[in-house]
Amino acid sequence: MRPSQRQADELRPIRLTRHYTRHAEGSVLVEFGHTRVLCTASVEESVPPFLRGKGQGWVTAEYGMLPRATHTRSAREAAKGKQSGRTQEIQRLIGRSLRAVVDLSALGERQITVDCDVLQADGGTRTAAITGACVAVHDALGRLLAEGKLTESPLRDFVAAVSVGIYRGTPVLDLDYDEDSDCDTDMNVVMTGAGGFVEVQGTAEGTPFSRAELDSLLGLAEQGIARLIEIQKAALAA
Amino acid sequence: MRPSQRQADELRPIRLTRHYTRHAEGSVLVEFGHTRVLCTASVEESVPPFLRGKGQGWVTAEYGMLPRATHTRSAREAAKGKQSGRTQEIQRLIGRSLRAVVDLSALGERQITVDCDVLQADGGTRTAAITGACVAVHDALGRLLAEGKLTESPLRDFVAAVSVGIYRGTPVLDLDYDEDSDCDTDMNVVMTGAGGFVEVQGTAEGTPFSRAELDSLLGLAEQGIARLIEIQKAALAA
Amino acid sequence: MRPSQRQADELRPIRLTRHYTRHAEGSVLVEFGHTRVLCTASVEESVPPFLRGKGQGWVTAEYGMLPRATHTRSAREAAKGKQSGRTQEIQRLIGRSLRAVVDLSALGERQITVDCDVLQADGGTRTAAITGACVAVHDALGRLLAEGKLTESPLRDFVAAVSVGIYRGTPVLDLDYDEDSDCDTDMNVVMTGAGGFVEVQGTAEGTPFSRAELDSLLGLAEQGIARLIEIQKAALAA
Amino acid sequence: MRPSQRQADELRPIRLTRHYTRHAEGSVLVEFGHTRVLCTASVEESVPPFLRGKGQGWVTAEYGMLPRATHTRSAREAAKGKQSGRTQEIQRLIGRSLRAVVDLSALGERQITVDCDVLQADGGTRTAAITGACVAVHDALGRLLAEGKLTESPLRDFVAAVSVGIYRGTPVLDLDYDEDSDCDTDMNVVMTGAGGFVEVQGTAEGTPFSRAELDSLLGLAEQGIARLIEIQKAALAA
Amino acid sequence: MRPSQRQADELRPIRLTRHYTRHAEGSVLVEFGHTRVLCTASVEESVPPFLRGKGQGWVTAEYGMLPRATHTRSAREAAKGKQSGRTQEIQRLIGRSLRAVVDLSALGERQITVDCDVLQADGGTRTAAITGACVAVHDALGRLLAEGKLTESPLRDFVAAVSVGIYRGTPVLDLDYDEDSDCDTDMNVVMTGAGGFVEVQGTAEGTPFSRAELDSLLGLAEQGIARLIEIQKAALAA
Amino acid sequence: MRPSQRQADELRPIRLTRHYTRHAEGSVLVEFGHTRVLCTASVEESVPPFLRGKGQGWVTAEYGMLPRATHTRSAREAAKGKQSGRTQEIQRLIGRSLRAVVDLSALGERQITVDCDVLQADGGTRTAAITGACVAVHDALGRLLAEGKLTESPLRDFVAAVSVGIYRGTPVLDLDYDEDSDCDTDMNVVMTGAGGFVEVQGTAEGTPFSRAELDSLLGLAEQGIARLIEIQKAALAA
Repeated sequence: MRPSQRQADELRPIRLTRHYTRHAEGSVLVEFGHTRVLCTASVEESVPPFLRGKGQGWVTAEYGMLPRATHTRSAREAAKGKQSGRTQEIQRLIGRSLRAVVDLSALGERQITVDCDVLQADGGTRTAAITGACVAVHDALGRLLAEGKLTESPLRDFVAAVSVGIYRGTPVLDLDYDEDSDCDTDMNVVMTGAGGFVEVQGTAEGTPFSRAELDSLLGLAEQGIARLIEIQKAALAA
Repeated sequence: MRPSQRQADELRPIRLTRHYTRHAEGSVLVEFGHTRVLCTASVEESVPPFLRGKGQGWVTAEYGMLPRATHTRSAREAAKGKQSGRTQEIQRLIGRSLRAVVDLSALGERQITVDCDVLQADGGTRTAAITGACVAVHDALGRLLAEGKLTESPLRDFVAAVSVGIYRGTPVLDLDYDEDSDCDTDMNVVMTGAGGFVEVQGTAEGTPFSRAELDSLLGLAEQGIARLIEIQKAALAA
Repeated sequence: MRPSQRQADELRPIRLTRHYTRHAEGSVLVEFGHTRVLCTASVEESVPPFLRGKGQGWVTAEYGMLPRATHTRSAREAAKGKQSGRTQEIQRLIGRSLRAVVDLSALGERQITVDCDVLQADGGTRTAAITGACVAVHDALGRLLAEGKLTESPLRDFVAAVSVGIYRGTPVLDLDYDEDSDCDTDMNVVMTGAGGFVEVQGTAEGTPFSRAELDSLLGLAEQGIARLIEIQKAALAA
Repeated sequence: MRPSQRQADELRPIRLTRHYTRHAEGSVLVEFGHTRVLCTASVEESVPPFLRGKGQGWVTAEYGMLPRATHTRSAREAAKGKQSGRTQEIQRLIGRSLRAVVDLSALGERQITVDCDVLQADGGTRTAAITGACVAVHDALGRLLAEGKLTESPLRDFVAAVSVGIYRGTPVLDLDYDEDSDCDTDMNVVMTGAGGFVEVQGTAEGTPFSRAELDSLLGLAEQGIARLIEIQKAALAA
Repeated sequence: MRPSQRQADELRPIRLTRHYTRHAEGSVLVEFGHTRVLCTASVEESVPPFLRGKGQGWVTAEYGMLPRATHTRSAREAAKGKQSGRTQEIQRLIGRSLRAVVDLSALGERQITVDCDVLQADGGTRTAAITGACVAVHDALGRLLAEGKLTESPLRDFVAAVSVGIYRGTPVLDLDYDEDSDCDTDMNVVMTGAGGFVEVQGTAEGTPFSRAELDSLLGLAEQGIARLIEIQKAALAA
Repeated sequence: MRPSQRQADELRPIRLTRHYTRHAEGSVLVEFGHTRVLCTASVEESVPPFLRGKGQGWVTAEYGMLPRATHTRSAREAAKGKQSGRTQEIQRLIGRSLRAVVDLSALGERQITVDCDVLQADGGTRTAAITGACVAVHDALGRLLAEGKLTESPLRDFVAAVSVGIYRGTPVLDLDYDEDSDCDTDMNVVMTGAGGFVEVQGTAEGTPFSRAELDSLLGLAEQGIARLIEIQKAALAA
């Protein structure tokens, strides 16, 4: 039924490749099917002005898409001279999601910046980015532990994200581009390992959705995210 | 219990003043307590380039806040030379919400731009904006009907929005600034008169929220929006 | 003779509403007929870099127009990413006019920023803005006096402004939009309560004007401003 | 009495050098004492979008200052990425002044852009620019006449400008930088050869000025501009 | 002697991976040691305005570096709102190099845009980009041939690039980051398969270089580029 | 054979006018035939942030072209809001060239900014700029010596630049605009008085160039620059 031939509650093949590039303290290539996002976590020993002297750290994120990550080339944001509203919305979402699981006081006066750059897009880039970024932050914190700059990891839980939507009347998990382009309702859900919700963002693209539909989408997302967090744990155990 | 002394499920006093300014085809001052937003709907007899020749119209929104609408003055976006990520996120939300209830084919090749400018802010500016903008669009379409440019209104339903959140452990409706600054979870919900969901955007500011909390917030929002839509209808009947 | 039916030396109905919004230290809605400008004065306990450590304060102004304040919608400056030359010219004029009556040394190392935002435009927005801003500054200084931060008001005099022009051969006072669009010479005059000139800006839109015409325009302006200053005083006495 | 040793009503040495550069249709170096401005008039066979198909032309101006035209280096506007409010104000003034003496219908659907670039600044750059620009426009129109594109010059009159001010209590003509920095009132006046006023812009830098002072400044300006127009005529006769 | 232990005339391990991403008509990951650049070639069936109707095509390039491609994170150009001078210099160089081997008339009225995005930087990103971009353009043209839009490839020759420099007194080929940071003279050379020079850009970082040094650097570059072109041919034969 | 009637190895008439403007510490008008560039060197008693406290100075350059320096008017970069890639490339080149001959440690913690503004363009503006800038820097350093701020000049050598190219098959020196527009290969060479190369930038506009052609171009440049440095010395002796 789905263009991707998947079951309604089936994720795409998920892959997390750690240490994908050399320089960043954390560097993870995350793949949700054909969607590929490079997540690097960079540690800086200072905080933004609004936090100076407050004895806590900060985690923030930036998001970008290579111009030809998509079916047709889109203009380079650096050349246009500004980031689109969509880009800003996504990077704010990633930042908030990560801060939900990092104890900023335990981090101390330093900042972690996670860059999520989409090398290839096939739907779900923001949810893949959050899922990969969590592992990249883990690895960057591991570096601080190894260097003795921290004695305990400030990462309090895992965080992962998935999209769900109503595709031709049926709630489905983890939409790819073809499904996303043709679905009525699209929801991005971010949850922790403990099963708490961090973000729920649902949008009716066409017909408004009912409470019952909303409930079944949330159920699918809960399952999918539980599975993603198992995959994150396995990647870290490797 | 609430700083505002309101019941958990009590809206602030809501006021919709139509024809607030002279030039716009639709012009509504919406007040949610001390929050005051001027919503003007402007009709333009052309569509943006991506829609030319497709036989349909467009509805879009822009959002702004006067520099001293807030407790402390914030820099003017026109002077800084760019709109913040927050502004862009809000104006995209308003636009999507309005398009959910306007039949763009029935509108014909014209565009309605709704400007939502916050004169005074006390929490909930985006939900007030959506609630007022719906009435402003109604009035602008009324002008097109009166001029014989349309024979039937393309407005298929009402749309309104409210915020809900968990304030010190209790789910409450329609947060003002003091409540919003001190709440754990903040959710903005947009619904139609028919009771369909258009947008659900929930964010855990501190502790992640549970499925049960999410359910009770949605229940509060459903009630609150039903009441807002009654108020919209009353304003139009006046 | 005038489209507005007014006498040549007759002002439009003028209204000054103090305390129009809650947050600003001074907040005045000024109306010159259908022209409505919200003037808020914000106090900040620091000065711009070029004045640091010089023992004096600063007064500055910003000006904006809501996109649909005008007959047809104009693009939002924050969205275009820059302020027009006209906007900058006007806000520089307002700032200079206010500084002419504020003793900056007596103000101490603090800054007052006046935001003049046009809610509805019908000609004369800059002159209305100056006239309203003076009262907003008065109220903001009153707040500093009440808080004991100042012991004497640094406001040395009143300042108000009006436009004059030659409409179909006749010098007239306080042009509205219809008159302004169709006049040969347009002059904005800013004066103090003591009758001194702060700014005189006259422009021939079509035919150059003679010295005699200039003289009669200045006479009209002197009368009009004297009347505006009485209205300011009455508003403060209320 | 004046730092420059000049009489109160004495202009600085004025020089107009035509054909200063090779490529522009009109190219004039204007000097008011040490102030040197290069004015080039460029003809383009099209008009800006708002005038297309209206059967008339346009005259516009741009103004710039080389970074080290001044006593201390000021930042390059191209590097900062925007023109200052002062720059915009001046270039709008130059454009309006020139349009006051060019018959835009007689010009036909073409545009003349005058670039006024200050090579060395010593006060009065905008008045020098207007005075030189008039001659550059004359020469550019002369080229169109010579090429047979026009049969009659659309230049209806001369236009020139001068500054006047109250320096230590005395009204003086054509202020240089030292006088300008230390004067109470500064006025720029633009007039035609026929003695009509095109622009009058007076600003009280310190104490407001009286009607009597205004009158004596206007008188000085009238004399000074009459002399400048003689110099323009002499330059064209050469 | 070299930090990399390589012989003076030894290239780093070079790898060209074709079809690295799915959507672009040509997509090549090029590696010069640890330097990794993703080069995608996108075909668009139109040309920039300055070429419309001239019966020829265009090839252009854009260059970017992921923020953490480098040892320490550099600010994202899209966030800063402008591309650096270095970025612009490099993308202009890549574009010119490619146009040297593409017959623009034979290409027809279409444009190929090559995006060169550095995933990991270790010196020589611009030379790697040119070398990979040539293969990506080849593949994009191959697609046009396969689709019957072209009957003959407009690629007239190969083009590749390498850096050479004087490292502690010795001319060496293909500098990595450590060598580049510590060398006196740095030269980038671009050549065709036929052995013609397309670009030579040499810069003395410290002491100026002599004609003899220049000659030996050119010799090294000629050898290195001949080897790179063999590698390109092998990649296309695979 | 050359449009300019010059011998292949003949420079245009070169003129260096020192003290061209009053305010800058060094101010030189350089002319290469009809190309005229004003080079001003400004001394500032501070260094950019990246050099603070390092006990050394900095030399940097900015480049601009007046809009009508060229045959047809080009848009003003300050009005467009950004500098072109070409401008940035040139100003980086000028800065590097000057730093090659200034001992930055001997300069002390101060910065020299050289502004090179093209008043009239006829090819070779960047090479003229470098040649003139060297003299302007000399004069600015002379001022520091005269004021006792330096006891020895940090200028270690002269630096000058010239373009060479292959015009219709023949290598020629110092191309003017007509030659430059119609030449196959264009090379800019920067050298010191001691005969060392600082920059070599050669570009094949059409057919790639051979090693033999490159060699003969370098020979021409060596001769031309030796002559330019004699002219610089003569100007300083005057």
